[in-house]
Amino acid sequence: MADTPTEPKPAAQVPPAEGGEAAPAAPSKKGAKKAEAKAKKEAEKARKAAEREAAAAAAKAASAANDPAKANYGDITPTTKVDAERTYLRDLGEEHIDKVIKLRAWVQNTRPQSASIGFVELREERDWSIQGVMLANSEGTVSKQMVKWLGSLPLESFVLVEAKVVKPVEPVKSCKVSDYELQISRCYLIAPAPPVLGLGFAVANRAVASFEDEEQANDAEKVAEAGVAGLSLDALPNASLTTHLNNPAMHKRAPIQQAIADVRIAVRKLFSEYLDSKRFNQFEPPALIAASSEGGANVFSMPYFDKSAYLAQSPQFYKQMEIAGGRKRVYCIAPVFRAENSNTPRHMTEFTGLDLEMEIEEHYHEVRDTLEAVLLYIFRGLKERCAEQIELVRTAYPSEDFLLPEPGKEVRLTFAEGQKLLREEGPEEFRNVSDDEDMSTPQEKALGALIKEKFKTDFYVLDKFPEGARPFYAREDPENRKLTNSYDFFMRGQEILSGGQRIHLPDELEARLRTKGIDPQSPGIKEYVDVFRSAGVPPHGGGGIGLDRVVAWYLNLPSVHLTSYYPRTPKRLLP
Amino acid sequence: MADTPTEPKPAAQVPPAEGGEAAPAAPSKKGAKKAEAKAKKEAEKARKAAEREAAAAAAKAASAANDPAKANYGDITPTTKVDAERTYLRDLGEEHIDKVIKLRAWVQNTRPQSASIGFVELREERDWSIQGVMLANSEGTVSKQMVKWLGSLPLESFVLVEAKVVKPVEPVKSCKVSDYELQISRCYLIAPAPPVLGLGFAVANRAVASFEDEEQANDAEKVAEAGVAGLSLDALPNASLTTHLNNPAMHKRAPIQQAIADVRIAVRKLFSEYLDSKRFNQFEPPALIAASSEGGANVFSMPYFDKSAYLAQSPQFYKQMEIAGGRKRVYCIAPVFRAENSNTPRHMTEFTGLDLEMEIEEHYHEVRDTLEAVLLYIFRGLKERCAEQIELVRTAYPSEDFLLPEPGKEVRLTFAEGQKLLREEGPEEFRNVSDDEDMSTPQEKALGALIKEKFKTDFYVLDKFPEGARPFYAREDPENRKLTNSYDFFMRGQEILSGGQRIHLPDELEARLRTKGIDPQSPGIKEYVDVFRSAGVPPHGGGGIGLDRVVAWYLNLPSVHLTSYYPRTPKRLLP
Repeated sequence: MADTPTEPKPAAQVPPAEGGEAAPAAPSKKGAKKAEAKAKKEAEKARKAAEREAAAAAAKAASAANDPAKANYGDITPTTKVDAERTYLRDLGEEHIDKVIKLRAWVQNTRPQSASIGFVELREERDWSIQGVMLANSEGTVSKQMVKWLGSLPLESFVLVEAKVVKPVEPVKSCKVSDYELQISRCYLIAPAPPVLGLGFAVANRAVASFEDEEQANDAEKVAEAGVAGLSLDALPNASLTTHLNNPAMHKRAPIQQAIADVRIAVRKLFSEYLDSKRFNQFEPPALIAASSEGGANVFSMPYFDKSAYLAQSPQFYKQMEIAGGRKRVYCIAPVFRAENSNTPRHMTEFTGLDLEMEIEEHYHEVRDTLEAVLLYIFRGLKERCAEQIELVRTAYPSEDFLLPEPGKEVRLTFAEGQKLLREEGPEEFRNVSDDEDMSTPQEKALGALIKEKFKTDFYVLDKFPEGARPFYAREDPENRKLTNSYDFFMRGQEILSGGQRIHLPDELEARLRTKGIDPQSPGIKEYVDVFRSAGVPPHGGGGIGLDRVVAWYLNLPSVHLTSYYPRTPKRLLP
Repeated sequence: MADTPTEPKPAAQVPPAEGGEAAPAAPSKKGAKKAEAKAKKEAEKARKAAEREAAAAAAKAASAANDPAKANYGDITPTTKVDAERTYLRDLGEEHIDKVIKLRAWVQNTRPQSASIGFVELREERDWSIQGVMLANSEGTVSKQMVKWLGSLPLESFVLVEAKVVKPVEPVKSCKVSDYELQISRCYLIAPAPPVLGLGFAVANRAVASFEDEEQANDAEKVAEAGVAGLSLDALPNASLTTHLNNPAMHKRAPIQQAIADVRIAVRKLFSEYLDSKRFNQFEPPALIAASSEGGANVFSMPYFDKSAYLAQSPQFYKQMEIAGGRKRVYCIAPVFRAENSNTPRHMTEFTGLDLEMEIEEHYHEVRDTLEAVLLYIFRGLKERCAEQIELVRTAYPSEDFLLPEPGKEVRLTFAEGQKLLREEGPEEFRNVSDDEDMSTPQEKALGALIKEKFKTDFYVLDKFPEGARPFYAREDPENRKLTNSYDFFMRGQEILSGGQRIHLPDELEARLRTKGIDPQSPGIKEYVDVFRSAGVPPHGGGGIGLDRVVAWYLNLPSVHLTSYYPRTPKRLLP
């Protein structure tokens, strides 16, 4: 290993540290009393844990001593070998009845019934679970000790199982695979879970109770209490997002979290798929840039050898450079960064942009229509490919079907038409909204409700934004300089895309910069304008889609933080 | 636009600045003399430019004054309308002969022949070019002024053309479309190029002459001289990488650069395609992390609100977290960062990792074989899908076919076998290489040559690296603790992948950390170990592929910088 591209050398390879995590809040007035109670609880907890461990050790010793089934269970060893056919739960069918199979699964639940019968729920992946039953027999291949051992396995341990597939007396309601059951003949512990989980599987699979950081301490206390009392963690109330994220393995094992992840990746794939079919070229914009001081407020900056570097806030400049470079139609899927100290369910500091840019032949509506088409392709694709996932998410986060316009009846209002609708039919407070000023979030939501009522769609376009609401590179409408050739797209009344035609002529760009009060010679701006001066650049336009928002609003989730694999906020850099 | 996900608000939206670019070198001893000569040249240049501009203006005025063809050429206006059928060069066939078509293209070359005949090379995309001819006619739809205007168009201007498709007298060798020619009837300038390009198209399409920064000044001088003398830029010698990158539009228009970009994206797509078909789940690792101080040497760090954040050096921890989270088999394609002050053709500060991680059922060779299979799928796919691109790249960077092992005869040596081969058959200096120490880059290259000779392959695997050469998370070979269950993959004697089995049991991980002299309680490490303690994590392994290297070594390019869209090095953050 001379110099590995993606796995750093031993010394450099160290996983994330807690450096970035907020310190716990300072103790309150009731601190002392609470601390005392806590200490008492901790002591009680330690005592119970010691008892449990001693009991487990004793049981282990006893069971090992004189157990005819000794070789058929216990910790896995390098010599453990199970030769039965490896079968996946999703493939299980009538042809497997009475066959002996092998599988690997998490212990999702154990239900000891008697000294000689024990039940276990085994989960293979996502929500694919099956009931296993273990019956001590007179031949001694399954002993009572073995049944006891199975019942003592900590939940979320990972095991290797050999079992015969049988028909249960009646369908097993608690498992996804309800028509079959496994008669376990051998079982080995591959990786143990702790005696008490920080976040139980059932709780992880429910809606997040709170997005406030403070809730986490309460959750932890409840979990500890339940552990001490030997209660089922399933009985606990829903947990806060902080508890979820502080228990990443369990948070991610929740089927609804996996379903959200599946939907997210499906959106990425549908986006690429559609654009690939339309001859778009994918490209990779950089994350490290030599940014201008002007965007300074919301930009992350860092020392970069003897200079400074910044993290890209959008691939805007690079998309346009690809067009200048003759790539005709381009798209990218890349992380973008905002150093915005906003602690809301709609903000993160790192998120994923789905961006495209394309040459315009006759009219910028070519771009608007392409963006609309790719989003409709995504929405229709999700409904088709992720029906199961959408249903799963709804068990925790209810939502109505995402309404789409009928083909050929896409809803595209001008900004002015939207404002007019708000003035005439919207709530009292929006009776005086202006056509020249950008919309606020409450305005957007009110308009979304009106449009849904009127046009029966959750997806629509607002076109022709006023000049003042758009950045310097937005091209003005040649017929009305107060407007720009630009649009926003909305889902359930919330914006998910912004885009439009860009200025492709350097002189026009310089004039516009001056109008906007920006010096065309200022650092960063000059290099940008120079690209358009360096060779003839075709007219072009594009748009940027916020992947996190598309997923969140499509599934009607209460926060974009639930859509991200590792959400980054001003307060959170872990895990 | 309340708060746009990927396009920042006007004030914040500013493209990259020059802040990050190295300042020009201090003047040498000959500085004064050179400066004088330069000033003279600049003056001469300015005089010639003024002359040219005056002549152009005069010509324009004269031509506009009394020109029957006036409406058929000139700057495009909002009312310009060409109704002919839009046809793409790649679709041109016999059925188009004598038909009038419309296209949009860059002026790649102009060759005025006489006052009434002019030739032009039009390039539509990449290397798709066609010859256009303009003949002044007696009806006055094409005038001599119009022919003159065409000949005066700056190269790399973007034009809209109406033309009749005809058969040329003999095939046009200088254009890719050699069997057809365009008789231009109308032509409009959509976006002009400057009178002199910073990097000519033909030069952009040749091999980079030098990767040294100093060469750039020479290039610029030569371009300026040629401009003054009115010489063709094609006659200039090859340019340095700096000149290429400082002229991004022209660098990117070069067909070989576009071919490299196509190959890069094809590698990404083939990687996803294969893994999707094997039920892998894609995921997105974060770029911003709360990194440990231990990896400090090569990590970028930045202020993050009231804390510090770091840029991910690899998705290692996150891949493993996905496995802990029950995702079974995962992959990601994401940027990774190294703050290494290495200025070599093999290093960048930002590059793209193709990473995978998967559960191990019986043996870690399941992972090794999956990685081998995905790479073979990529190599075979490239040969099939990118044959044209590979040929294009070879016109500038010659290479031999990338040799693959025959199916079933993959070359997998152990590290010890590789060292033995080096000792016994390698160059003199490697007669004493040890089985316990990592290989150096020269050793790798020498071994690559030996293996190519012996096994006729450019792609092979070294397995079972010594313990000392691997990071703490690498799992030891249970049968020989001096070795690890880990491997590197090579292309043409250069490493492109590193991977292996990871430790999945927290106690084993802690013990290994202590052996390596790392405190398991240290920040970052503790959170990592805790994940394996929080729930049972299946055995797993994976690997990371350096995308930039795969592309560079497959195409036999002299530097990874040529494979990146926007290469980032200690000296370069622009464009």
